[in-house]
Amino acid sequence: MRVFICGFGTVGQGFCEVLAARRQFLIDRYGEPVTVVGAMDSKTYAYNPNGFDPLELVSVKQGTGRVGTETYQDSVEVLSGAEFDILVEVSPTDVKTGGAGLRNIEYALGNGKDVITVNKGPLALKFRHLIDLAESNGCCLRFEGSVGGAMPIINLCRDNLAGERIESIRGIFNGTCNFILSKMDTGQPFEQVLKEAQQMGYAETDPTNDIEGYDSACKVVILANAVFGRDVTFNDVRITGITSITEDAISLAASHNMVIRLIGEVSESKLEVGPRLVPRGHPLGISGTLNTAQILSDLAGPVTVTGRGAGRIETASAILSDLISIMDERARRR
Amino acid sequence: MRVFICGFGTVGQGFCEVLAARRQFLIDRYGEPVTVVGAMDSKTYAYNPNGFDPLELVSVKQGTGRVGTETYQDSVEVLSGAEFDILVEVSPTDVKTGGAGLRNIEYALGNGKDVITVNKGPLALKFRHLIDLAESNGCCLRFEGSVGGAMPIINLCRDNLAGERIESIRGIFNGTCNFILSKMDTGQPFEQVLKEAQQMGYAETDPTNDIEGYDSACKVVILANAVFGRDVTFNDVRITGITSITEDAISLAASHNMVIRLIGEVSESKLEVGPRLVPRGHPLGISGTLNTAQILSDLAGPVTVTGRGAGRIETASAILSDLISIMDERARRR
Repeated sequence: MRVFICGFGTVGQGFCEVLAARRQFLIDRYGEPVTVVGAMDSKTYAYNPNGFDPLELVSVKQGTGRVGTETYQDSVEVLSGAEFDILVEVSPTDVKTGGAGLRNIEYALGNGKDVITVNKGPLALKFRHLIDLAESNGCCLRFEGSVGGAMPIINLCRDNLAGERIESIRGIFNGTCNFILSKMDTGQPFEQVLKEAQQMGYAETDPTNDIEGYDSACKVVILANAVFGRDVTFNDVRITGITSITEDAISLAASHNMVIRLIGEVSESKLEVGPRLVPRGHPLGISGTLNTAQILSDLAGPVTVTGRGAGRIETASAILSDLISIMDERARRR
Repeated sequence: MRVFICGFGTVGQGFCEVLAARRQFLIDRYGEPVTVVGAMDSKTYAYNPNGFDPLELVSVKQGTGRVGTETYQDSVEVLSGAEFDILVEVSPTDVKTGGAGLRNIEYALGNGKDVITVNKGPLALKFRHLIDLAESNGCCLRFEGSVGGAMPIINLCRDNLAGERIESIRGIFNGTCNFILSKMDTGQPFEQVLKEAQQMGYAETDPTNDIEGYDSACKVVILANAVFGRDVTFNDVRITGITSITEDAISLAASHNMVIRLIGEVSESKLEVGPRLVPRGHPLGISGTLNTAQILSDLAGPVTVTGRGAGRIETASAILSDLISIMDERARRR
């Protein structure tokens, strides 16, 4: 199986490390190795039909700042000159236009390649179009890592809960906000905790995307489209961030044995992100940088999943999960 | 697809209700209905090769106390006189000998039938033997509902986390104990809360099996065998129950921002059930009758799942999940 990786930042490199660590496992399971034949960062690419040592690619990137020696203008041109079976699209997300990621995914699906992505932009903007493209070309589009990182949710709903009527999903989809809010539980004010989050690398210098709820909104859109079969985009979400949460609000909640968390909510009719009261001890009342989601369905009742929403290897593990699911599917079709 | 249901108590009846509710869904997905051709309670059985209305079976059982008009001595004799594809074995659990459930499962697997069970006895006593029997006869043995009811864990580890090296699983596998311990968090003594649990139907008149940790131990054994490939039985588990947890212990924990929960722990080398300190806000620190499990693996890190550990429809939903998984498998093999 030949893989082309678009985007060679943290996640792309993490995926190479995961592939190296699971090389023998994949050979044992499928009778053939998974080979990285190509990798592309924002300016350069490397392509070799015989495959690269994935750790060598990581080491080149870390040493030179570039994954390859060839430069390019048009990523699709690079892809169309390469032979591969699966595109792993993990380039930086662009929620306004979908960016190069959208064009890469469109190219791959349009040419019968399976796609695994964690790139939220294309999924939040053009979900229905991409799913239709995958179906009409008989290939798979998988995106487990796009919501909640290593927290299993998309494939869980599709496979394990296939017989359920899922009524709603409510969850914490942004670890930065959850870190801030749960630190505020201990009496610290918003501004101070935000600074701490920035110092620890949990929040970016411009934290808008996280604290205004935009990142959570992307995830809610993906769930609405993937799990509820809706056809919505980022602009359809009612979003409230956490910047106006005061210490007073937190202590008032605490006096009722509650905590405040930034909750994304999605159902057939709902599409919201905003601060909500959660009882202490409730599965959604977790602290720290974790992500969590409560799936409410008619038979199973509430099922909650919790996991690391980000991280080099954690996100790559979700890509591995999608890769295994695609390769299982291919093995059965033979 | 023809199903024979052994055991027609809460779960067997719940499964019939679920099958009735999902009749059209299953026809749409597989192009054929799932038909209940037989059902057996502790004394009687009903068999009709053309199938029953599953709700009618429930209504007969509820009206007469018996599922059928025929009585039997030997359940295996009944099964061997019937034609079916999948055995749903949900008869009362017998952790000492495995009881009729063990013999029913052995018969079915030995004769090439797939088996779905939530019966912990046979799984906690003869796991390796049953898995080998399934493999050598080319059929499936599924048991999602045997651990944590509607909480997805067995199939999650096998499918979604297939690429992970699972290092340990720690969890709350008994809702009765968790109800008691989380009620004690509010300052009530053990004996009083136990009485309340009995009044509310959460604890049995003889609560030994729950509060001494025996029920949790069965689940830990199933996980050890199913997820870690071990070959252990109930007697290998180091078990401490919750009867000696005092109000003082609970308040001491609270003063350190911790709660006490009955945790089952399993890994390559560990097999324990006992009360443990859990930080407030930790995914394992949940309150109420829920079950939860934290799966620690090398790539994804900690993944926690939470759900209803028991209940008529909830447990039946886990059986439905297994049924779909088996039927997907069969559909692909065609």
